[in-house]
Amino acid sequence: MTASDASSTPAIVTAAILVIGDEILSGRTKDKNIGYIAEYLTNIGIELREVRIVADVQEEIVSALNGLRSRYGYVFTTGGIGPTHDDITADSVAAAFGVPIELDPRAVAMLSERFPADQLNEARLRMARIPVGAELIANSVSKAPGFNIGNVYVMAGVPSIMQAMLDVVAPTLTTGVKILSDTVRAGLREGDIGTALAEVARMHPDVSIGSYPFFSDAGPDTNVVARSRDPEKLRRAMDAIKDMLAAEQAKLS
Amino acid sequence: MTASDASSTPAIVTAAILVIGDEILSGRTKDKNIGYIAEYLTNIGIELREVRIVADVQEEIVSALNGLRSRYGYVFTTGGIGPTHDDITADSVAAAFGVPIELDPRAVAMLSERFPADQLNEARLRMARIPVGAELIANSVSKAPGFNIGNVYVMAGVPSIMQAMLDVVAPTLTTGVKILSDTVRAGLREGDIGTALAEVARMHPDVSIGSYPFFSDAGPDTNVVARSRDPEKLRRAMDAIKDMLAAEQAKLS
Repeated sequence: MTASDASSTPAIVTAAILVIGDEILSGRTKDKNIGYIAEYLTNIGIELREVRIVADVQEEIVSALNGLRSRYGYVFTTGGIGPTHDDITADSVAAAFGVPIELDPRAVAMLSERFPADQLNEARLRMARIPVGAELIANSVSKAPGFNIGNVYVMAGVPSIMQAMLDVVAPTLTTGVKILSDTVRAGLREGDIGTALAEVARMHPDVSIGSYPFFSDAGPDTNVVARSRDPEKLRRAMDAIKDMLAAEQAKLS
Repeated sequence: MTASDASSTPAIVTAAILVIGDEILSGRTKDKNIGYIAEYLTNIGIELREVRIVADVQEEIVSALNGLRSRYGYVFTTGGIGPTHDDITADSVAAAFGVPIELDPRAVAMLSERFPADQLNEARLRMARIPVGAELIANSVSKAPGFNIGNVYVMAGVPSIMQAMLDVVAPTLTTGVKILSDTVRAGLREGDIGTALAEVARMHPDVSIGSYPFFSDAGPDTNVVARSRDPEKLRRAMDAIKDMLAAEQAKLS
């Protein structure tokens, strides 16, 4: 990285996700968006710090959104922007920002690309009600837009639509230095390496080291993952982890 | 329901889930526990109201846990109770409750069922460090226990272990009147029915009515879901929804 890169790229950009929807909390619908957005943000250099799932209740949405948008660089919401009475995300975001919500002619125009005038009924026009001051997020799948206000990006809950919106939003975001990650399979149980791994972690304080147990056909095993924004520090930590694993394997064989 | 049933079963018991783990926030691991617990709680008559996912950072865990345990009847945590340095859930829960954490002889005995003395090393004994005053939750899969303190249930992040722990915990929980649910496939797009559905919802204020769009081979369609603790009110709302759907289908055909 050159000096000019370093000065123009912020070290850390943070984000949170707010999932809005009774159907996720009841278990009827299994969320597919959190994992997708988490991986997407990591890949573009944005660090996801927190996720909340709340019900379709305006005061809950407002409270969670205001808590998250003041703490993190970006907040991405999913769900609750459809045409029915239980879609209250846009109203709730307007309330959180203390701005009015109005029928947005730009959003009406987008809906008109899909729906002839006689189908642009009261319910569908709900999807064109946008907080004043927001920018629209195009929806290439079904036209009804998301929107961005302040550091909050309001997206659909249907995964295919959310993913299309995230592709639209991503190039406009400020991103930080990407976190690099490396993984090694231990060939040992987590408890076999825990003490020695803690020592490696202590010696490499700028590298985040995690261990994740899993079951393979050969029995319990562990993935050790090291993460850092500094490739040299990451390499040194991984070397130390691999040396440690070799020593522990030798002890147990 | 008889009068004595009504007096012994609380109407509403609420809960929250706190997922603890950097690996979920990075997208490296896709959570499989939230949807499972959500459905499980719904089925036994506990209403999941909120979910949070936080990083492996003690102050974040403490803050989220104290926020959730004061608001909801139960809090279920997943993740961070393994043998390595990044497993800080037990320490964080002890800090949230303001109690010491100590090596628990009951937990050591459980671990001894699986590990001979020469394998019960410092790392594995981390899994027997339990906040003082907590009750253990048996782990039939890999022995290392979860624990319950106050209204908080601390469970493993590995899905098979979490599920085994939840089966142990569930019979001990106070449960409320189950929310009954009924679903009808509209055969119409969400925007076709939104206005009329809002009117049905307005006429049935004690029934929660949601609509969930999906794509089928025949094109966009909608599931309409009604939920209520009162079977008669649920039946009446579903009748009204079906009448409305028939009327809307007739209009559009």
